Amino acid sequence: MAAKDLYHNAVVGALKNDGWTITADPLVIGYFSRDVLIDIGAEQLTFSAEKNKEKIAVEVKTFGNPSPVTDLQKAMGQYDMYELVLAEFDPERTIYLAVSAKVYTEGIFSERLGKLVVEKRKMRLIIVDVEEAKIVQWIK
Amino acid sequence: MAAKDLYHNAVVGALKNDGWTITADPLVIGYFSRDVLIDIGAEQLTFSAEKNKEKIAVEVKTFGNPSPVTDLQKAMGQYDMYELVLAEFDPERTIYLAVSAKVYTEGIFSERLGKLVVEKRKMRLIIVDVEEAKIVQWIK
Repeated sequence: MAAKDLYHNAVVGALKNDGWTITADPLVIGYFSRDVLIDIGAEQLTFSAEKNKEKIAVEVKTFGNPSPVTDLQKAMGQYDMYELVLAEFDPERTIYLAVSAKVYTEGIFSERLGKLVVEKRKMRLIIVDVEEAKIVQWIK
Repeated sequence: MAAKDLYHNAVVGALKNDGWTITADPLVIGYFSRDVLIDIGAEQLTFSAEKNKEKIAVEVKTFGNPSPVTDLQKAMGQYDMYELVLAEFDPERTIYLAVSAKVYTEGIFSERLGKLVVEKRKMRLIIVDVEEAKIVQWIK
């Protein structure tokens, strides 16, 4: 299986294991003449008295290219565009980037450049154990 | 000549025609273990009494890929990363994205999605007439 599909399936599984319902795969948002595609849409009942639904959109990034800097730029651009489009059309849905625990702890996110981006841009991340299909950490 | 080089040379020429001195091509910023490369660094004396130098970094985007949405995401990510890195290491230098007049008036920037991104992200653009190597417009 291609790394992209492997990661995608692992994130879907990890979200399900965490109690999320997958509602879109992919999540397609029509923005005037353009379709904007985000990998996964998911929902979960919150534990508040109002029984509100929490809604997220998740972009899965494998960081498999030779240049992790280029991969990071690509991820930043997608995250940013999806956040802007969601704010217009689905303001209650929050964008997350899903990355593997390995990429997060040993890859570009463990370096100063990755840390700068996550901190300054206040990026929301879901860290996933790909082998176990489990969420290791939410960074909000 | 590849479109990328053609655009690059046109932007360099347009900046020179506008009175800028090209000081780096590319501009390399070492960020700890990583090198971050921006296409062009340029400087110009301002007309203020203090004779300050205005410093810019320019990333040239051809928007030649089949998916302009992907191109836009890539450009957003680069712009964003360069802005963050410059803020740390060269805070007096301002990042710009250079695009052709054709891309700006007929491409993704003329669509709602492109306008949303430029407006919400307050992106700075240099619009260049590629054939004439002239700056048509600064968007600040």
